[in-house]
Amino acid sequence: MATIEAQMERATRLNRNEVEQLVRAVLLEKLKGGGGPPATERHASMPKTAGGPPHPLVVNVSARHMHVTQQDLETLFGPGSKLTKLKDLYQQGEFASEQLVTLVGPRQRIIPNVRILGPMRNYTQIELSYTDGIYLGIDLPLRISGDHHDTPGCTVLGPKGALQLTSGVIRAERHVHMSTEDMAYYGVKDADYMKLKIAGPCGVTFDRVKVRYHPKVVLEVHIDTDEGNACDLDSATGLELIK
Amino acid sequence: MATIEAQMERATRLNRNEVEQLVRAVLLEKLKGGGGPPATERHASMPKTAGGPPHPLVVNVSARHMHVTQQDLETLFGPGSKLTKLKDLYQQGEFASEQLVTLVGPRQRIIPNVRILGPMRNYTQIELSYTDGIYLGIDLPLRISGDHHDTPGCTVLGPKGALQLTSGVIRAERHVHMSTEDMAYYGVKDADYMKLKIAGPCGVTFDRVKVRYHPKVVLEVHIDTDEGNACDLDSATGLELIK
Repeated sequence: MATIEAQMERATRLNRNEVEQLVRAVLLEKLKGGGGPPATERHASMPKTAGGPPHPLVVNVSARHMHVTQQDLETLFGPGSKLTKLKDLYQQGEFASEQLVTLVGPRQRIIPNVRILGPMRNYTQIELSYTDGIYLGIDLPLRISGDHHDTPGCTVLGPKGALQLTSGVIRAERHVHMSTEDMAYYGVKDADYMKLKIAGPCGVTFDRVKVRYHPKVVLEVHIDTDEGNACDLDSATGLELIK
Repeated sequence: MATIEAQMERATRLNRNEVEQLVRAVLLEKLKGGGGPPATERHASMPKTAGGPPHPLVVNVSARHMHVTQQDLETLFGPGSKLTKLKDLYQQGEFASEQLVTLVGPRQRIIPNVRILGPMRNYTQIELSYTDGIYLGIDLPLRISGDHHDTPGCTVLGPKGALQLTSGVIRAERHVHMSTEDMAYYGVKDADYMKLKIAGPCGVTFDRVKVRYHPKVVLEVHIDTDEGNACDLDSATGLELIK
């Protein structure tokens, strides 16, 4: 009987392993990107011309991403964790980190591979498109970075722990980063709204692009993936920022 | 030995059943909506006013959907299948059917629950957003319905069979359905381009909205989910169709 039981036990173990491997493979596939729309990065720019604006007009699509405090980073990635740079972004000092997290929303759906952008901030924030929000089941408020009044949270999974955010999940209001020089050229001030005209087969004029002043930025418009896809930024034949 | 083998066989069978159940549960979850962004339906309209346009201006978001020939419907749903109505759409005779299919793209990702719209057509066509196209790995061409020159295909799964489309997967070019009366009011003709201004916190002007004439339609703009999300049609405070 011992032999029979041992053999049955081995048969059962083998099959448990098969089950485990299956589940692992499926979860791995989900975490690799089977569970949500992908990140995209798109870019369009107009060259600097004589007599034209002080900086070339650059439009970048912000794919979904996260900003973190040191404390929240350590919850997700373990004590003493630091963000490591994958690549520089257009604004000096900003970078896409190598650190990725998984978001879990109230519909029990997940979006994996959400990248953390550096450097560290004094608040934790997640910026998603409305398409992402509908997918996860989160009714996203439209906010400028850092404005977290009356915003929802979500669950964030990292390799070393989970974070239960109670606020800070937003759709970023479309905006243009401007220095003093840029604002003077366009005749606008901080928090004004401008228009961004994108010509092409899917031509769109974004009627509310908020001016965000910082003395050390270079001229750059940020739109999200819904906006980038609506106007098909890849096929744009012209960009114009209008007061 | 027969007894041992029989018992081992039974143990193995049980575990195969477990494996099968697991796989079924995972696939079912995927097919239920774990594998892609969801369908959305949004709508905004302006009331008809005295001295105004002959029909109220209605803007509808077309969620991803499929049109089918009788032959392709039968491949997916079995011989003799008919589309059954779930609900009427805004244009008379058009309807959302109860029939749902699953799309499989070249990245081995799936989008489940894609609804077939009726009535039957003389071509099979799938209309997706760019967000969907990026997710599936399909580079979507911008086309007016029925124009399938140089368009990609994809795999479509129904409960009774699979369809390998070699063309007909498109992003629908944004358009406005107009009758003779509507075209006369706006001073446009078939295939002209108009602008659609959507006011609100995510205000957008869609610069290329193609006029599509049919004697029996009522005035209706169709945009896709990327466009509907970019302008947040739900929060629109005004709609205007501009020549």
